[in-house]
Amino acid sequence: MRFDEAYSGNVFILSKQDYDNADAVLYGMPMDWTVSFRPGSRFGPARIREASLGLEEYSPYADKHLEEVNYFDAGDIPLPFGNPQRSLDLIEEYVATLLDAGKFPLGMGGEHLVSWPIFKALKNKYDDFAIIHIDAHADLREQYEGEPLSHSTPIRKACGLIGAENVYSFGIRSGMREEFQFAKESGMHMHKFDVADPLKKVLPALAGRNVYVTIDIDVLDPAHAPGTGTAEAGGITSKELLEAIHLISESDINVIGADLVEVAPIYDPSEQTPIAASKFLREILLGWVNKK
Amino acid sequence: MRFDEAYSGNVFILSKQDYDNADAVLYGMPMDWTVSFRPGSRFGPARIREASLGLEEYSPYADKHLEEVNYFDAGDIPLPFGNPQRSLDLIEEYVATLLDAGKFPLGMGGEHLVSWPIFKALKNKYDDFAIIHIDAHADLREQYEGEPLSHSTPIRKACGLIGAENVYSFGIRSGMREEFQFAKESGMHMHKFDVADPLKKVLPALAGRNVYVTIDIDVLDPAHAPGTGTAEAGGITSKELLEAIHLISESDINVIGADLVEVAPIYDPSEQTPIAASKFLREILLGWVNKK
Amino acid sequence: MRFDEAYSGNVFILSKQDYDNADAVLYGMPMDWTVSFRPGSRFGPARIREASLGLEEYSPYADKHLEEVNYFDAGDIPLPFGNPQRSLDLIEEYVATLLDAGKFPLGMGGEHLVSWPIFKALKNKYDDFAIIHIDAHADLREQYEGEPLSHSTPIRKACGLIGAENVYSFGIRSGMREEFQFAKESGMHMHKFDVADPLKKVLPALAGRNVYVTIDIDVLDPAHAPGTGTAEAGGITSKELLEAIHLISESDINVIGADLVEVAPIYDPSEQTPIAASKFLREILLGWVNKK
Amino acid sequence: MRFDEAYSGNVFILSKQDYDNADAVLYGMPMDWTVSFRPGSRFGPARIREASLGLEEYSPYADKHLEEVNYFDAGDIPLPFGNPQRSLDLIEEYVATLLDAGKFPLGMGGEHLVSWPIFKALKNKYDDFAIIHIDAHADLREQYEGEPLSHSTPIRKACGLIGAENVYSFGIRSGMREEFQFAKESGMHMHKFDVADPLKKVLPALAGRNVYVTIDIDVLDPAHAPGTGTAEAGGITSKELLEAIHLISESDINVIGADLVEVAPIYDPSEQTPIAASKFLREILLGWVNKK
Amino acid sequence: MRFDEAYSGNVFILSKQDYDNADAVLYGMPMDWTVSFRPGSRFGPARIREASLGLEEYSPYADKHLEEVNYFDAGDIPLPFGNPQRSLDLIEEYVATLLDAGKFPLGMGGEHLVSWPIFKALKNKYDDFAIIHIDAHADLREQYEGEPLSHSTPIRKACGLIGAENVYSFGIRSGMREEFQFAKESGMHMHKFDVADPLKKVLPALAGRNVYVTIDIDVLDPAHAPGTGTAEAGGITSKELLEAIHLISESDINVIGADLVEVAPIYDPSEQTPIAASKFLREILLGWVNKK
Amino acid sequence: MRFDEAYSGNVFILSKQDYDNADAVLYGMPMDWTVSFRPGSRFGPARIREASLGLEEYSPYADKHLEEVNYFDAGDIPLPFGNPQRSLDLIEEYVATLLDAGKFPLGMGGEHLVSWPIFKALKNKYDDFAIIHIDAHADLREQYEGEPLSHSTPIRKACGLIGAENVYSFGIRSGMREEFQFAKESGMHMHKFDVADPLKKVLPALAGRNVYVTIDIDVLDPAHAPGTGTAEAGGITSKELLEAIHLISESDINVIGADLVEVAPIYDPSEQTPIAASKFLREILLGWVNKK
Repeated sequence: MRFDEAYSGNVFILSKQDYDNADAVLYGMPMDWTVSFRPGSRFGPARIREASLGLEEYSPYADKHLEEVNYFDAGDIPLPFGNPQRSLDLIEEYVATLLDAGKFPLGMGGEHLVSWPIFKALKNKYDDFAIIHIDAHADLREQYEGEPLSHSTPIRKACGLIGAENVYSFGIRSGMREEFQFAKESGMHMHKFDVADPLKKVLPALAGRNVYVTIDIDVLDPAHAPGTGTAEAGGITSKELLEAIHLISESDINVIGADLVEVAPIYDPSEQTPIAASKFLREILLGWVNKK
Repeated sequence: MRFDEAYSGNVFILSKQDYDNADAVLYGMPMDWTVSFRPGSRFGPARIREASLGLEEYSPYADKHLEEVNYFDAGDIPLPFGNPQRSLDLIEEYVATLLDAGKFPLGMGGEHLVSWPIFKALKNKYDDFAIIHIDAHADLREQYEGEPLSHSTPIRKACGLIGAENVYSFGIRSGMREEFQFAKESGMHMHKFDVADPLKKVLPALAGRNVYVTIDIDVLDPAHAPGTGTAEAGGITSKELLEAIHLISESDINVIGADLVEVAPIYDPSEQTPIAASKFLREILLGWVNKK
Repeated sequence: MRFDEAYSGNVFILSKQDYDNADAVLYGMPMDWTVSFRPGSRFGPARIREASLGLEEYSPYADKHLEEVNYFDAGDIPLPFGNPQRSLDLIEEYVATLLDAGKFPLGMGGEHLVSWPIFKALKNKYDDFAIIHIDAHADLREQYEGEPLSHSTPIRKACGLIGAENVYSFGIRSGMREEFQFAKESGMHMHKFDVADPLKKVLPALAGRNVYVTIDIDVLDPAHAPGTGTAEAGGITSKELLEAIHLISESDINVIGADLVEVAPIYDPSEQTPIAASKFLREILLGWVNKK
Repeated sequence: MRFDEAYSGNVFILSKQDYDNADAVLYGMPMDWTVSFRPGSRFGPARIREASLGLEEYSPYADKHLEEVNYFDAGDIPLPFGNPQRSLDLIEEYVATLLDAGKFPLGMGGEHLVSWPIFKALKNKYDDFAIIHIDAHADLREQYEGEPLSHSTPIRKACGLIGAENVYSFGIRSGMREEFQFAKESGMHMHKFDVADPLKKVLPALAGRNVYVTIDIDVLDPAHAPGTGTAEAGGITSKELLEAIHLISESDINVIGADLVEVAPIYDPSEQTPIAASKFLREILLGWVNKK
Repeated sequence: MRFDEAYSGNVFILSKQDYDNADAVLYGMPMDWTVSFRPGSRFGPARIREASLGLEEYSPYADKHLEEVNYFDAGDIPLPFGNPQRSLDLIEEYVATLLDAGKFPLGMGGEHLVSWPIFKALKNKYDDFAIIHIDAHADLREQYEGEPLSHSTPIRKACGLIGAENVYSFGIRSGMREEFQFAKESGMHMHKFDVADPLKKVLPALAGRNVYVTIDIDVLDPAHAPGTGTAEAGGITSKELLEAIHLISESDINVIGADLVEVAPIYDPSEQTPIAASKFLREILLGWVNKK
Repeated sequence: MRFDEAYSGNVFILSKQDYDNADAVLYGMPMDWTVSFRPGSRFGPARIREASLGLEEYSPYADKHLEEVNYFDAGDIPLPFGNPQRSLDLIEEYVATLLDAGKFPLGMGGEHLVSWPIFKALKNKYDDFAIIHIDAHADLREQYEGEPLSHSTPIRKACGLIGAENVYSFGIRSGMREEFQFAKESGMHMHKFDVADPLKKVLPALAGRNVYVTIDIDVLDPAHAPGTGTAEAGGITSKELLEAIHLISESDINVIGADLVEVAPIYDPSEQTPIAASKFLREILLGWVNKK
């Protein structure tokens, strides 16, 4: 028994806790301060780790075992409460460091705005990449005057950063009229309501490209993910989201990083949302890291 | 800032609070006193209004915005607790007034028995109309001796009032043997288990007719609507109920009013039932009012 | 009013409470002491009985009424807390008595390990029988040294007892690599992810045989059964499990007993899991007992 | 193992299930149909029994063991839903039978109106008795026209039945102005806010008399009993209610029966209300039955 | 039946909804955007109104009836999400209007920072007034650089505004060392842990003065108010807070307004926190408005 | 930003994570496998750490700041599920290592049986020490045949190990008759129902002695600690337990270690139990470590 070792507490199941040899780094972004309706996703990463203890380490979908992947659970980035700008700067710096070290960044939100600094860090490293965005909400709002940062804006910002034609949204079933108009006019690729079927059509066209994937847990129907801030009826099943993850695993795209956001445990006393999220992360670790 | 205006509190999102110019009136019927198993729907309307604040005002399904509809949230009818007969009389009088004024009545239950006085008010105005009934339960029981009013009887009563051949039920998966027998023998149209597929077949036959639509939230599987008194496993998804609403929107029937009943918030700590209900009401407002 | 009668409290709806004339005996096995992740299924049987009071006694699926079946709810077997071996011995003895008396044993768990002594009792009576196993988890682990009994082992033990070729698993989506390897090599029949479709193919081959059916409620997606210890995202719907039950009802196999396990009410404040479980039991009573 | 015995399910801990030799009979009255604010006490008795399994059978307060008392848990009286008058008639008849047989009736509600028929049955047997009423609410409303029976009226009715001067209320902190006026003018004995201190003063005056005790669980602060329909802040602690029960045990009054009402489990996910209620019942069984 | 009347929905019980003749105005401040640990108090006012429906209109403590007070429930101030400065400006303007009109402002939070603009509005009207502050937390932090507004600062700001010697805190049991140091050195009056006893000593010294009272619900022990963001063990009971309110009612101070803040319903499935809050507000309406 | 540092995740607030220089070591014992009624304390330590983030680091009770104490949160001991004997061996070995290194062991349960191996480790180091035991339950049962280890036995075992005369129990309000008999006859010191008052009397007699303190959270009334397995009505308040902790801090005894056990989060959706537990641990760290 050694007490000078790293803490033995709440880490994602089977994490090796060895940063240097890790191919992927799992990290939390416990921020929800721009959420207007039902906050609480700041507690998402901790509960996803806790729920991961109920997972098997082997996936019968992928026929792979977590031991086959080198990943390091780095804990949560310590974000300054109530200060969105500073929080986003910290996330950008953090992910940039991971990318410099050649790690696959796998983030856990927190609200969806946390994806925006990740996009910026990626842009610094990759001349060209696409984004796959799986979500109930378009997240295509422009900055409001006076309220420059909001969880409804990251995909609009992404369009500005990497070109709308490189952004692919799936499962969208909610947004303002202006967002859907922008989607149509900007050249971005929006697939409403469904995820797996349109993915099947889109993935071949993305073959060989670098792609970042951002998943908002609320793409699931509230039946499958009640623990989220802006639950929206009429969503997809857990089965379909698993299928989507596996389609990406089996595709010819080069996944350069991913995040899973908006798990808010307080609205889900049965804990099914973090339980499902931990399974999605296992499948991502097994299928997207070093997939080459 | 003016303090003499109407109350700025809990109303359905974007309600104009102007009765005179309203095309539709949204009203609550907070009654659950004939419910035997798990009461609580008396609190449904208030929580649906509260949940509506998380909705977008635009629908990507209908490509319409709530600003395009004039509706007035009139609050809850003040019903005398524990007195079913007097409560039903008040509802009938209330809806009759709305119909006289040419308003589209959009009711929120409350238990399903509240639809019965609405049927009676409609009968006074329309010589001929049909009822579309979407529900897990047949609600075809006869009056019991001594217990003349029950939440299991409104559709049987409707058959007596407007002729069984004008009543169309969808999604039914629970009832007494006698109710299913009555369905067969009476000439009414009962479609078991499913909603969207049979609707597709039935709607053309109803083209041009006046139709009232009553939806019991428990037609959904408890996965999608845990907050209801008599949850019944094996139901449809929120996606299918949205599809059914849109099928009606796109049909050639003339919708003369509607209600959504049996949301009982206490059984649903994640609030997904009122969240879903508020979305269904938005789609109804956008698709059924003034549909011509 | 007579006070010398059997207790009028919490029994499954419409149970005749007459052992001698009963064709089927419903009994609870309130044991969860080998569950590692989230215990609580010891309270399952009591809540399933309570939820059954919200059921109709007639099934529109089977067009049958519970009055047509003679069953006796015998309450829970008094199991010694924390002593798995003694508990299993008691269950085996209990079920053996039922089988001797020609009763159809219909058990409610408790954790899945309770099925193991039932298998042993059946083996004593029947030279030849098959097992249909519907579950999210393979439950094919071998005994651990020092930990001889675990809720992850009953199906592996069953393979040893009656021959792997007589064991048919459906819906499996979780397990260790070794379990899936064993499934492949042992000659047992494992159907991953789905239940109804593979059942359709398998049932004709089992025609005429004696078959015991064990259902773990966690085969359902957590959306449909949040109240279980090891919820696993990506499961089937309540609708599909009902379909599976009815496929068996309509098949030519001879069902010699059944159990439904792993309902853990504490994780499900909306009570939808015991509500669904009580409906599955109603359909089993109507369709599997005396099916000839 | 015998299957012809009484059901082994949900009974109060250590109940002997032998009516003939029982000194006390524990029975449930699962009725809540006149409750206006938050119904649900119809499920109280079942959950109190379930919670009793966590109790020790010995009381260090009384230095007595439940084996020293002969009691029979008779289950719940089957009350016709939604029919208050018929329900009350059944309760009266039921309790009359118990009194004829010389049993100590110990009732579990249900709403407080269930005490009214018990009072009537007692009046038939005893020429003279007093009532100790422990409650947050005065329950002194008169019958409303048209609504003859309500959970706010039983103590007013009691005053009419046995004379206001024989009614002693404790802990009252809520009611209409008219109720408090009636209390003053009628000659009844109302002690506001506290229970144990006024009891100490009153009990000597009641020495030697026959006394029925009715306890509404909402006399406790909602901190100690959140699971009740009309929770009222500012109440007493569980410790004080235990003290009150023990004061009665040690007094010289002759307790002729008792009830504990208004436990509504749905509002208490931690189950502390039924857990506390089962302890109060244990202390009542140990201290009030055969106290001589 | 008139539909042009003010909304009949969720208002505090018995509110006359007549602004012009109102002596007091009840208003909500649904803001929680500077809360770091557990947000959610933005939903407090709506649930307090809903819970008020379970209250009696008469108080046996004060022997007064709500009909004796003219108050108007003005609903919630529409505050811009995530913009603390603009929100505070709106509150200040709102309360200034009330004060100009001679109304007693009775606010419902929302987080405690909402009291700060009220203090500023009061300062504009009254040359001299004191503040009674009842809370678990000192709320004496200074402004942070970059984070100018926080729910931990309002009392520190108050000390600057009206002089520390005019600020009286009660029940404080949590804070930074610096806050307690400031309390000692600044000349303000801090009473730790208890409320009623120190109030008894302080109130005579405040006789004749204008006093504003701000109550943070978390002064209660979490047993009595689990529904709050920063629950702190070791607090007072509901009984003691009621006593404190009544001590103020019976004192010779002139109460010029009050607020009750930090009710966060999501953490309290039993709803005991809004239930208690609504009772405190009733006692405040009865005892502090027009007390003279 | 460095990624090779110890994990930044879920640790007790302000833990220095430096074992070598730590005076105290905080560690979790996530075991609940001998609990019969309501298991779940295996999740206690993780939730106490999470709740600690809402604490202030300064105590106005002790006028001390956590920075003044060197402690190291070592995470949870990895205990083998379902194997009590091996788990207890691991705990004993673990604590022995801490004692050898001169650390103050501060344990978090888990069920109360975890204290037993700690007692054994202490006995190895100290010739003479006493135990202060604060609990609702006597925990004085003897070993059962066949069930050698149970959460009801640790204090009985302690009496055998260090002499009954060295064991002081406080707050006891539940147990078997035999346990209270043993307490009387064995010479141990049992103080029923209360904690602070008897402590005041006992502490002077213990002056100068080495004392280990074990606290079962269920000594609190369920109002203050609903999140525990065997909640027992009639307990003390959080205020009284804080007072008891401070009495020990200010006494002349030498505290040689402590534990706080039986926090079971699943029964407490408001999280008040882990919130309170984290405060007790803060006061213990501030008052008992290096108190001399």
